[in-house]
Amino acid sequence: MVLETLSVFPELFEPYMSTSIMGRARTAGLFSFEAHDLRDWTHDRHRTVDDAPFGGGQGMLMKPGPIFEAVRDIVGRDQRRAHVVFFSPCGKTFAQADAQRLAQKERVLFVCGRYEGMDERVYELADEVLSMGDFVLTGGELAALCVMDAVVRLIPGALGDAMSNVDESFEGGLLEYAQYTRPASFEGREVPAVLLSGDHARIAAWRRQSAIARTAAWRPDLLGGANLTSDEWDLAYRAQRTQHEEGEADA
Amino acid sequence: MVLETLSVFPELFEPYMSTSIMGRARTAGLFSFEAHDLRDWTHDRHRTVDDAPFGGGQGMLMKPGPIFEAVRDIVGRDQRRAHVVFFSPCGKTFAQADAQRLAQKERVLFVCGRYEGMDERVYELADEVLSMGDFVLTGGELAALCVMDAVVRLIPGALGDAMSNVDESFEGGLLEYAQYTRPASFEGREVPAVLLSGDHARIAAWRRQSAIARTAAWRPDLLGGANLTSDEWDLAYRAQRTQHEEGEADA
Repeated sequence: MVLETLSVFPELFEPYMSTSIMGRARTAGLFSFEAHDLRDWTHDRHRTVDDAPFGGGQGMLMKPGPIFEAVRDIVGRDQRRAHVVFFSPCGKTFAQADAQRLAQKERVLFVCGRYEGMDERVYELADEVLSMGDFVLTGGELAALCVMDAVVRLIPGALGDAMSNVDESFEGGLLEYAQYTRPASFEGREVPAVLLSGDHARIAAWRRQSAIARTAAWRPDLLGGANLTSDEWDLAYRAQRTQHEEGEADA
Repeated sequence: MVLETLSVFPELFEPYMSTSIMGRARTAGLFSFEAHDLRDWTHDRHRTVDDAPFGGGQGMLMKPGPIFEAVRDIVGRDQRRAHVVFFSPCGKTFAQADAQRLAQKERVLFVCGRYEGMDERVYELADEVLSMGDFVLTGGELAALCVMDAVVRLIPGALGDAMSNVDESFEGGLLEYAQYTRPASFEGREVPAVLLSGDHARIAAWRRQSAIARTAAWRPDLLGGANLTSDEWDLAYRAQRTQHEEGEADA
């Protein structure tokens, strides 16, 4: 897989892309990464990429010229089809299903804006426009890093243990169950006894119940996609009611 | 404002925190930043922060001991009350209102996990638990950077132009209007004529309509919070219907 970015701060990517799981997967050849500098496609002495908005207003916009020229040039450098992703608060909110979809691509180019936004005409270059959520970031660089992190984790072999993706949050439509490690008693806080029992069937049942109860309490919007049995729905309703009563007691 | 992180990869923050708006705001003294290394609170030769989960399962969890010790120590180093934020897929989905709330705090400590998660007992240290969205990241470092970016932008003076936050997406419950910069004609793609008219009232009306139409087309879930007039609701419905018809034409 080929991952590329286009940005006015190409140096922001390398530290993250060389560290931990990303660094190991890259060294192992599971993906390659290249950060392009948008200013390489400017033609003035100041390497200008921004200009004032038509119609007035604060801040500066990214000019269409360098972005069109850069994207066309980068896409054309390699025969593999580049899937071009822009970031904007107007885009589709990124979720795990998008990571799974992007992980199937041979080559992805992330175009990262800065300043107050981009000239609207550049979005015709986009195969898709993503948003990280309902908040305002200074630029697309962190968004691209989040997406690349979520995508690289899904490349077979990227995680040391091939199974590590299986139990993760969202994969089964539920939040992950509560997890504990040593010591079994930490300053009087005990690990649930069932987890120390060695009884794998009981542990599996406890974990399923933990995942359902946590999802019902904190993210009930996810339950609809979680394929619960009738008994599990009862558990979910009880967990929600407990959460509600605790909320009223706090208030 | 004091921003601090606790992580096993403290070196991942500095490049971003020294660049562009973040770097200028920090140099100007609008906030200070310190990245703490969780391994400084371990006591074994290997500086171990993780261990296998009770009850079996893939991957490693972050141990409770170093996190309890580190958070207590860091919080106690400074008289200003530290607001402690953890990240987890089980947390509240981060949004602009959270950035506005956090920007009022005097001091915030972000605790960033790695590996398959944290021992559940550590969350009692959290004043709040945030999630970046419904996707899986390798660690909390990118999440903390996103939150810090969104928060620092809201510190008065952090953006060069004091007004630059006013028109931004989500602030008025709508996505931002389409924006354009020079050239007025780019390879045959024209900027809407009204933006070149110099008629400020017509430009303001066009922008409001653009914001409503874009929100209706791409994020109709936001419209309920946007305080539209009756005529503006009509515009929103028309924009949604057009989007829907275009979607059917594409299919």
